[in-house]
Amino acid sequence: MSMSAKIPVAVLGATGAVGQRFVQLLQNHPFFEIVALTASDRSEGKRYIDAVRWVIEGDAPAAVQDMILLPTDAQTVMRYATIAAAFSALPNEAAQVAEPAFAQAGVLVFSNASFYRMHSDVPLVIPEVNADHLRLLTHQRRARGWSGGIICNTNCTVSGPAMTLRPLYDTFGVKRVFAVSLQAQSGAGYPGVPSLDITDNVLPFIKGEEEKLEAEARKLLGALREENGEPRGVVEAPLSVSAHCNRVPVIDGHLVTLSIELETPARVEEVMHVLQTYRRAEVAGLPTAPHQPIVVRNESDRPQPRRDRMAGHGMSTVVGRVRPEPLFGACGVKCVTLAHNTIRGAAGGSILNAEVWFKVFNA
Amino acid sequence: MSMSAKIPVAVLGATGAVGQRFVQLLQNHPFFEIVALTASDRSEGKRYIDAVRWVIEGDAPAAVQDMILLPTDAQTVMRYATIAAAFSALPNEAAQVAEPAFAQAGVLVFSNASFYRMHSDVPLVIPEVNADHLRLLTHQRRARGWSGGIICNTNCTVSGPAMTLRPLYDTFGVKRVFAVSLQAQSGAGYPGVPSLDITDNVLPFIKGEEEKLEAEARKLLGALREENGEPRGVVEAPLSVSAHCNRVPVIDGHLVTLSIELETPARVEEVMHVLQTYRRAEVAGLPTAPHQPIVVRNESDRPQPRRDRMAGHGMSTVVGRVRPEPLFGACGVKCVTLAHNTIRGAAGGSILNAEVWFKVFNA
Amino acid sequence: MSMSAKIPVAVLGATGAVGQRFVQLLQNHPFFEIVALTASDRSEGKRYIDAVRWVIEGDAPAAVQDMILLPTDAQTVMRYATIAAAFSALPNEAAQVAEPAFAQAGVLVFSNASFYRMHSDVPLVIPEVNADHLRLLTHQRRARGWSGGIICNTNCTVSGPAMTLRPLYDTFGVKRVFAVSLQAQSGAGYPGVPSLDITDNVLPFIKGEEEKLEAEARKLLGALREENGEPRGVVEAPLSVSAHCNRVPVIDGHLVTLSIELETPARVEEVMHVLQTYRRAEVAGLPTAPHQPIVVRNESDRPQPRRDRMAGHGMSTVVGRVRPEPLFGACGVKCVTLAHNTIRGAAGGSILNAEVWFKVFNA
Amino acid sequence: MSMSAKIPVAVLGATGAVGQRFVQLLQNHPFFEIVALTASDRSEGKRYIDAVRWVIEGDAPAAVQDMILLPTDAQTVMRYATIAAAFSALPNEAAQVAEPAFAQAGVLVFSNASFYRMHSDVPLVIPEVNADHLRLLTHQRRARGWSGGIICNTNCTVSGPAMTLRPLYDTFGVKRVFAVSLQAQSGAGYPGVPSLDITDNVLPFIKGEEEKLEAEARKLLGALREENGEPRGVVEAPLSVSAHCNRVPVIDGHLVTLSIELETPARVEEVMHVLQTYRRAEVAGLPTAPHQPIVVRNESDRPQPRRDRMAGHGMSTVVGRVRPEPLFGACGVKCVTLAHNTIRGAAGGSILNAEVWFKVFNA
Repeated sequence: MSMSAKIPVAVLGATGAVGQRFVQLLQNHPFFEIVALTASDRSEGKRYIDAVRWVIEGDAPAAVQDMILLPTDAQTVMRYATIAAAFSALPNEAAQVAEPAFAQAGVLVFSNASFYRMHSDVPLVIPEVNADHLRLLTHQRRARGWSGGIICNTNCTVSGPAMTLRPLYDTFGVKRVFAVSLQAQSGAGYPGVPSLDITDNVLPFIKGEEEKLEAEARKLLGALREENGEPRGVVEAPLSVSAHCNRVPVIDGHLVTLSIELETPARVEEVMHVLQTYRRAEVAGLPTAPHQPIVVRNESDRPQPRRDRMAGHGMSTVVGRVRPEPLFGACGVKCVTLAHNTIRGAAGGSILNAEVWFKVFNA
Repeated sequence: MSMSAKIPVAVLGATGAVGQRFVQLLQNHPFFEIVALTASDRSEGKRYIDAVRWVIEGDAPAAVQDMILLPTDAQTVMRYATIAAAFSALPNEAAQVAEPAFAQAGVLVFSNASFYRMHSDVPLVIPEVNADHLRLLTHQRRARGWSGGIICNTNCTVSGPAMTLRPLYDTFGVKRVFAVSLQAQSGAGYPGVPSLDITDNVLPFIKGEEEKLEAEARKLLGALREENGEPRGVVEAPLSVSAHCNRVPVIDGHLVTLSIELETPARVEEVMHVLQTYRRAEVAGLPTAPHQPIVVRNESDRPQPRRDRMAGHGMSTVVGRVRPEPLFGACGVKCVTLAHNTIRGAAGGSILNAEVWFKVFNA
Repeated sequence: MSMSAKIPVAVLGATGAVGQRFVQLLQNHPFFEIVALTASDRSEGKRYIDAVRWVIEGDAPAAVQDMILLPTDAQTVMRYATIAAAFSALPNEAAQVAEPAFAQAGVLVFSNASFYRMHSDVPLVIPEVNADHLRLLTHQRRARGWSGGIICNTNCTVSGPAMTLRPLYDTFGVKRVFAVSLQAQSGAGYPGVPSLDITDNVLPFIKGEEEKLEAEARKLLGALREENGEPRGVVEAPLSVSAHCNRVPVIDGHLVTLSIELETPARVEEVMHVLQTYRRAEVAGLPTAPHQPIVVRNESDRPQPRRDRMAGHGMSTVVGRVRPEPLFGACGVKCVTLAHNTIRGAAGGSILNAEVWFKVFNA
Repeated sequence: MSMSAKIPVAVLGATGAVGQRFVQLLQNHPFFEIVALTASDRSEGKRYIDAVRWVIEGDAPAAVQDMILLPTDAQTVMRYATIAAAFSALPNEAAQVAEPAFAQAGVLVFSNASFYRMHSDVPLVIPEVNADHLRLLTHQRRARGWSGGIICNTNCTVSGPAMTLRPLYDTFGVKRVFAVSLQAQSGAGYPGVPSLDITDNVLPFIKGEEEKLEAEARKLLGALREENGEPRGVVEAPLSVSAHCNRVPVIDGHLVTLSIELETPARVEEVMHVLQTYRRAEVAGLPTAPHQPIVVRNESDRPQPRRDRMAGHGMSTVVGRVRPEPLFGACGVKCVTLAHNTIRGAAGGSILNAEVWFKVFNA
């Protein structure tokens, strides 16, 4: 990749909450340059600044305010702009149709939608967890006859737990995980959660979330299944996850409590050391990669969403309260994990996937 | 007990958040009449209305507004008023000293403080869970040489889970419980949690709370240990509880997610039936007892603190999302439970203890 | 009116936030009995409990849970049920069409919609402010050829200020009022304000609200214009009101600061006395009328929405911080006023209008 | 001032909420370097990181975490460190004693405390409003016999209105201002406002705040009174301000609605132009000065605290909803103004005062 010329990209579904994060985080990105923004029919043809209700702090970046919104249609977009990659913040139904069309047209889609995540030939990737799954793309392209492709990031709730479990899984093995989430409002997009539902309240249910957390964790921690030296799919990790998902009155940052049964005994200090020192070479030096994938805190009352969600510019997972889980004896460990749901768990995660792909796998 | 003359009672520590609830709930009570209010030295001698910062909705009851606050000293209180019972909303250090002094002076103390809860001769009681533990009082009086006594209610967080577990424990047996609480601000009293700590935030730690939840659950579900036909203590129930306790931006109502391993398999419908139909004769017809100790909701997103905390006038435990817990196979069940922390989990709980005592055990 | 047989009524638009309040407040009402509920096409034919997302604390009343929702169409409703009155919680566009149709069909519509409020022949009424405006109905019926009619309640924000200004206007005269509102989320209905917009935030604009507050105050405080001994319209009161309207993170209760220029000088004690002792004979003894229309508080920091909104079961206006307004010299007075926006300012207000009508004007 | 060697400074009262902001904003400051931190006796001798409960997002800067806290005593501090200036985040009572002691010892105290603000020889300064008032220091030094001095910033609530009024006062004249504040929780420091007081609530009173807003606005906009060519005091501006101050559930950012009576008529566009183009040469290029002192927004619903408080890194005042104020005829204008209370209205304001002093007045 030549650094002098940036890779031209589109943001699909650029007016929603995650679309806005893509736009914000891609501002002045050293690798990528936004050349197209798409939106639903309702907003097509409008200037971005006129169509968007900017829900993030501050303002939409000046560079995109006057861009005219295109329809989320591969043919139309390609007619107006040459793009090598697209960041998709599309809702699921739109993603189901549009993402393959872009992939067919030669565009690499870095998707935040859930539709294709569990398809066997689609890489579901958090780079520090399973960057090697990106190698599935070769198979995907051949199987589907695409010159582009689809690479998914994870559900916003699973990103913190998956990052936390990766080094524990590799070092001690993990059998069972009881996870309880306290999720932020922004996870539901905009307008999302009505204030009358969440003020002075907790919603103890988020549709589809517990199933996604349980399934995606197993795929993320799984190993590539190879045939004739080529990855053909993922063998899910043999751990069991059970989740309770709750919505709480917090703007950003999904907190998850974990009670973990390891395969082999581990002391609290060992667990903390393994988490704190975890690094992955694939992401070293990438612009969106945090210095530390996992920040371990020693205070008794951290992590907290408001105070810790911006650790590593919103890309670090913050773990605290590492302590024994008595119900699993010597193999038990409890902790609390936090990740920024619209940065690491959504737009930032996809951008890091793209950085790894273009810089490392397809350099 | 003669109903024509009410039992004269004091509220100890009447100006704090729980003290206020006692005052509010004892207003027009058919059995009890407040004849004395105590406070710390700072407020002694003031009118109640001048000393209290009323944090509950509405106003302090007119009947007590002009009462002069007494010091929390048994001798002084008994000099001014003849009381048969006292409701204690004292902080732990004050309770340690004052409650025995009142018990010694012949007063039955219904305490919300934690200091004596785990003492072997002190009944720790939720009437619908273990009213029979009140029988320990005979032993306590003899052992301590008191004509009064101390009867404790539970930690505010354990009340919902203990109520939920009681019928399951009796019907199916319970081995292990993973509990994660989302607790309200009022659990920390007043001024309690600073708004800068909890707005747009979660605090994933509450000092001492996890230990209390784990220990009190075992005592509440335990059986009386008898010697020569007289209760001498409690054999803790052989179940294991592990808790994560969190503070969330909610005013009242502690929500707790439970992942329960039963001793014997049970279908979801059976569990729901057992919870919904649970009744205890000891509390039938008592003024503070809710019609249903446990209200089971079928909606996917209930219970919610703001919408359900006042079920049964704040005295019912509301359970929802009863579903299988796959990590415990056929013996696993998951649910969410909610109880009002300053009513059922504090003042209302103690008042119900007093009603049971005076009406049933000591009628 | 015979008290033995209740007046059969409908609630139009029964599934929205205000519709729910009507349903809640009409439960066990001594005068009225709900015999029909209407909703938009989407919900027509469903049971109320299946169509409603109940946003108020607790549950929908048992008596209406199984009622089948009718379309908001006068002919259809009258075919299924004989109703004498309808409480309208319709959105403005629906109200514009439906309310006259019901009025034509002989139904007296007590409306919470804004569409007809400023029409010259439509009574815009807060009973303690201007019950006599109900006499406009005769003119309305003749002018429009209706046997029923439309009686409007006010915008939720104006109810507190109008109640506060009424006795001051009558006693001292009022020239100018600077009003700044801090309005609750429920004023925007459900789903209403997205939580991402209002958490840790203030919205300094509410569409159309400032204009309504300014105009409705003048009509409410105005005098009937009579021709040939019959009211033909309202002469707006010659006071000027200027408003800033803000949305704040509060569930219920609109707080409004007032800086008032009186016509004649008045001392703070006089103002407080006039407010505190204000009574109106028309509402005496009516079930929804509060004992005191205006509750004056002496504490420095009251009224507060959460602590005072339920004063008089949500029907009292609470006024506090009465003090001089130095910018208006001896004629200046400042205060803070609070009214429950979905009770006094919406459903409760309309029900009290109906009580006054049936009990006093049309007894 | 030599830029190669930074000016050594202390932060007095470094562990409180405003103290933390000083520490945060002075991190890597091009002019100043923290060489001493002081705290109350309780924390003296502890490491900063051990004594502080960091309430701002993120963590305390690494450079100060290990600093040992000194007592807030000029002699002791000067024994340990040579400082030229001190930023005071002391509470009022401590400031009353400590600030003169430091001034006596030759230190220039940039104070956030209110005690000396209204003293006639003490500059009360917002640089873009009245940087020339810094010239009072000569008089102060001579009158008090100090080699250092005290320079005050303003009350956090007045900073937005004063900045907004300055260009209007200069251009059109200002007679009367009705101001209503919606103030953030952080304005009360830490622990400050209890969450039980402010969740789902508004507090319509803040002790002393209305008086400060009214008085400080007049001093800020006032003119230097000179005798023999030397400033001896400030002639307060002849405008009248009347305020209602409210606390709302917002973390940072004080919003104030203004209804302004100008001396001469002005159209809305003129007012917006005057605000938008306002600049002051004294602050040009200073590190903490925002590019635009006043940012005017055209959207109907801005400024909003969460979305606009960080404009100009928290140093800009954001004004919106500029529109006519009908109650003042052609001379009336209404608007909404927002300033970050702990940055512009506290620590950032004092730092900018120091920058102006050392760079411009005392260069």
